[in-house]
Amino acid sequence: MSSTHWQATVSWRGGAYVGWQRQPNGPSIQAEFERAIGALCGTGRVPVVASGRTDSGVHAEAQIIAFELPEPRTLRGLIEGVNFHLPDDISVISAAPAPEGFCPRKWARRKLYRYRILNRMGRCPFRRPLTWHLRKPLDVDAMIAGAAHLVGRHDFSSFRAARCMAASPVRTLHSAEIITDSDGEIRLEFIGNGFLSHQVRIMSGTLVEVGLGARSPASLPALLGAKDRGAAGPTLPGQGLTLVWVKLGEGPVAG
Amino acid sequence: MSSTHWQATVSWRGGAYVGWQRQPNGPSIQAEFERAIGALCGTGRVPVVASGRTDSGVHAEAQIIAFELPEPRTLRGLIEGVNFHLPDDISVISAAPAPEGFCPRKWARRKLYRYRILNRMGRCPFRRPLTWHLRKPLDVDAMIAGAAHLVGRHDFSSFRAARCMAASPVRTLHSAEIITDSDGEIRLEFIGNGFLSHQVRIMSGTLVEVGLGARSPASLPALLGAKDRGAAGPTLPGQGLTLVWVKLGEGPVAG
Repeated sequence: MSSTHWQATVSWRGGAYVGWQRQPNGPSIQAEFERAIGALCGTGRVPVVASGRTDSGVHAEAQIIAFELPEPRTLRGLIEGVNFHLPDDISVISAAPAPEGFCPRKWARRKLYRYRILNRMGRCPFRRPLTWHLRKPLDVDAMIAGAAHLVGRHDFSSFRAARCMAASPVRTLHSAEIITDSDGEIRLEFIGNGFLSHQVRIMSGTLVEVGLGARSPASLPALLGAKDRGAAGPTLPGQGLTLVWVKLGEGPVAG
Repeated sequence: MSSTHWQATVSWRGGAYVGWQRQPNGPSIQAEFERAIGALCGTGRVPVVASGRTDSGVHAEAQIIAFELPEPRTLRGLIEGVNFHLPDDISVISAAPAPEGFCPRKWARRKLYRYRILNRMGRCPFRRPLTWHLRKPLDVDAMIAGAAHLVGRHDFSSFRAARCMAASPVRTLHSAEIITDSDGEIRLEFIGNGFLSHQVRIMSGTLVEVGLGARSPASLPALLGAKDRGAAGPTLPGQGLTLVWVKLGEGPVAG
């Protein structure tokens, strides 16, 4: 198997980066990939596209990217070569020749984002870089009740960063699960067809306010209806957020 | 609840440390605890003992330590105060007043050590600091067969660092499990009444040689019988090793 046009599943810890997108004010995941693939090919940077952007500090277990090489490479040569030139906190997990016309952004159908909260008194050295630590106890049942109101096709303007430039604020949230473990970790898992800028972190911050008793689960439909960012909860820190997976269709989304 | 004599369950990521024991050649976990507890109490360092030593780079999910404060503290004040003075990669998880005559080393009955191997081509940014990455595929069934020969009460001289100063090389290994997950991770989990210096890492290195086909599972009884460190496999790197838990008895081990 040898190809010039590739798709790859990639993973990173975002703590040291300003986010996916290349920008002048710090190291980005996109710039690291473009530099590493260029180094492998002995060229300047090789343009790389992803299924979407992630913010500063956000992690990815399995983002999908695509790029075109100047010359064909084998699967093994590509993965080992790119990983050799990447820093330790970014990695290619797997790769495959890209189908004709492939675009990870247009072909993406569903994404799972996970927001991890360590909700206990003692912190945890292992979870620390990947979770947000909140000592005040959360009422998980109230959060579950609140999250149910967010599921469906809605105008998510109340849960959108002021700087969000998406043409439409309408998105479909397929599920919103709240999962607890025996060590005090609470995971908020959102599956949707796509997300507005900061949407997951603002939904999470709003559900935390529900868990603290500062707002009721039943208040969430009115909050969606308000279409007012100022009415929702805070944007939680990026370090707690992980893009877990992206599911692709067989071609671009219609329309 | 207020006390001067405490036991605590503590956790750390070992990557930045020379191991548990205070020593001149680098930062140790013990020195960090002694400094942090001293800082909380406004004194010089407060002596801290653990259930055993761990090597450079080795992690702990739940080590048991003990110490005596110059003045009584509450549970919450102790945990939050010590954590405030500890670096982010070390933490107190929980604490309780220590029973009369408590010594975590003498009262320890069983320990679980886990050696994590990422056995696949692509590395993983999330597992990287806590696992050892091996690309050559391992035969897990052979490793399971080999591990079974190590279980029991044996003279583990073949699996002991040259510098090990334990009075007796006899230890009881209660279990040796090899666990795989769907992402290519292989975990070697050893429960024993205690372990010699480097014992877990040498047993793991020997089982890796079994998994690579370089030695047979059936050769392990003779290796135990040889009582010769040179006959066993390599000491695997410390970064893959974690002390998972320590179980205590109601008093010191007899004899």
